Amino acid sequence: MNDMNGLRGCLSGSIVKLGISARDIIYNTGFYGHPREDCLELTLVESAYLLYKKRITIKQDEKYLDFNDLICEASRMTDNFEVKYIVYKDLRERGYIIKQSVTDFRVYPRGGRPGSTPSEFLVHTLSERWPIHLSDLIQQIETAANMRKDLVMAVVDEESDITFYSARLRSMKGKMKEKLLCSDIRAMLLEDRVIVWDKDALAKLHNEFFYGKPLDEFHLHLSLIEAAYLQEIEIIDIIDISEKEAKKILTSCEFARYAVTVEPDFPIKLAVYKELRNSGMIVKTGYKFGSHYRVYMNVDKQKGMKHSEFLVHAVESDHIFNLSQLSRAVRLAHSVKKQMVFAWMAGNGINYLQISRMKM
Amino acid sequence: MNDMNGLRGCLSGSIVKLGISARDIIYNTGFYGHPREDCLELTLVESAYLLYKKRITIKQDEKYLDFNDLICEASRMTDNFEVKYIVYKDLRERGYIIKQSVTDFRVYPRGGRPGSTPSEFLVHTLSERWPIHLSDLIQQIETAANMRKDLVMAVVDEESDITFYSARLRSMKGKMKEKLLCSDIRAMLLEDRVIVWDKDALAKLHNEFFYGKPLDEFHLHLSLIEAAYLQEIEIIDIIDISEKEAKKILTSCEFARYAVTVEPDFPIKLAVYKELRNSGMIVKTGYKFGSHYRVYMNVDKQKGMKHSEFLVHAVESDHIFNLSQLSRAVRLAHSVKKQMVFAWMAGNGINYLQISRMKM
Repeated sequence: MNDMNGLRGCLSGSIVKLGISARDIIYNTGFYGHPREDCLELTLVESAYLLYKKRITIKQDEKYLDFNDLICEASRMTDNFEVKYIVYKDLRERGYIIKQSVTDFRVYPRGGRPGSTPSEFLVHTLSERWPIHLSDLIQQIETAANMRKDLVMAVVDEESDITFYSARLRSMKGKMKEKLLCSDIRAMLLEDRVIVWDKDALAKLHNEFFYGKPLDEFHLHLSLIEAAYLQEIEIIDIIDISEKEAKKILTSCEFARYAVTVEPDFPIKLAVYKELRNSGMIVKTGYKFGSHYRVYMNVDKQKGMKHSEFLVHAVESDHIFNLSQLSRAVRLAHSVKKQMVFAWMAGNGINYLQISRMKM
Repeated sequence: MNDMNGLRGCLSGSIVKLGISARDIIYNTGFYGHPREDCLELTLVESAYLLYKKRITIKQDEKYLDFNDLICEASRMTDNFEVKYIVYKDLRERGYIIKQSVTDFRVYPRGGRPGSTPSEFLVHTLSERWPIHLSDLIQQIETAANMRKDLVMAVVDEESDITFYSARLRSMKGKMKEKLLCSDIRAMLLEDRVIVWDKDALAKLHNEFFYGKPLDEFHLHLSLIEAAYLQEIEIIDIIDISEKEAKKILTSCEFARYAVTVEPDFPIKLAVYKELRNSGMIVKTGYKFGSHYRVYMNVDKQKGMKHSEFLVHAVESDHIFNLSQLSRAVRLAHSVKKQMVFAWMAGNGINYLQISRMKM
């Protein structure tokens, strides 16, 4: 057993220390651990993996630990050890070199090696069941960005299967440039939609700028959001018809006060809609896809609306993601060849977070 | 204009009355309205549609109403008139004969006619934005069932597009019959999962009965739900390893008390899991599809788990559906060729509601 000396480790605190010879055998062949002057230090996750691979043995207080003992020890010492181990093992078995980092792990490109190759991305591990605060996720993304890396979320489900998502902040910019040149179009508020009764206005608003949906050749239905936007840029007047004798033009405050009773998330939805429209994009309802909006970068007026590139869902800045719902949203977006983007108010603007599934 | 007399209607309350001659011209050609001894009575929705089609004129207090006037009047008198009108017009233009009913409309099969053909289904109209209580939906389904009809939900989105869903209560019955014949398998509770460390138990539980997911050839990960079920049928003992010196076997109460801190919806999820398993189905996590479970009617032990037929999501009996989320769930289920089923506790059992998109 003399030649195996170097591969016998000692658990001390949350570190396993291996003799100096392990630096050659363990570090140089797979970049496990952190080489010190007189030893090689392994994290608990690395130790568990190498123990499982039977490449090392581990003693604690003169007693050998088997894999099960180590997992139990590590779970007592480290929050969510099991979830981290599942992700570590998966990535190692896919041939990635993976090291500890502030977000959990950093991953090197296949064929790359620490020291000579920069790492490819940072991984943050999550369990399907944990609620995740938007602000925490942003912080992780920014931590990665400060190191010029992208963040990958590794979500472990009940069955210990892993789904990888890339999460990144992005800007949204479309190619629609023209300005609507009309005003004083009369529109009637009817419960939860607004109707324009004017053939010429319909042609202008819908055929040229893709607002609303024609009910027939004379009637254009606008959503409350579209109506609020067109009212704000002074294209339409919204008329309240609920009192027969006293039809009145609503101010934007009055309209917003009404709209929020129909749609509680009207303010944030409107803020996101305005920003997207002002950035040259065509924005339509995403109801059929379970999101607030589907968004077109560019629409050819001759060909009409074909394929929208994004689903955008507006959330509050203190939003908490349920990972199961997030999975559903991203998966659905991909099944219709769109990118899933979440939008929220930050300072005076809107921030956008794109979450995409990744094949590893 | 004498020959048009019968087609001149009078709005009186929420009914438009046409002269006796309209019975031949309007009723017999499209089954609009309700024939009385001395007149034909139209609902507001029917009147608006016929006015739009220019088949009738309507007077109120000696003044002719144009389409816009009628829509405004009707919206004042009827809740959600606009949503109902959108659905009515759509179905009429698809060639269906459609009449008023308790749920909103009843629809006759193409080519069928009231009086000689039974109606095909009942339609309930909804706006995308309305929250819908599970109990209200069940009531509508039961109303339809009492008339031996299926219920169809017509959901009108912001853009006045309609998505049709069939909603029906169903039973769930699988074909897996065998009983697990083992006991006293030791399993360790590790944070949010349970691990069985035993090669033989792994073979039995996973390979034969599809419990858990093998981490490697010696370790089987069970979800908290699977562990609770296997504990209840006395196959496994769950051991708490959080105290090194005092490993103890948890009672099912202790385990449930812990599990609910990890998964707040643990009780309803477990109740649904038990019922599905006891009904001969294989139940695995549906995380990747944004639902609690994916469910297999039958699994061939040689071929392993291939295609699950259902996504099942457990909800509380006072659940309120957000139609946008419902749309996402159903659409995603269809995109992976599964049926979307919601499950909840009712009395001593579990009820199942299947919601599917319908092409009209």
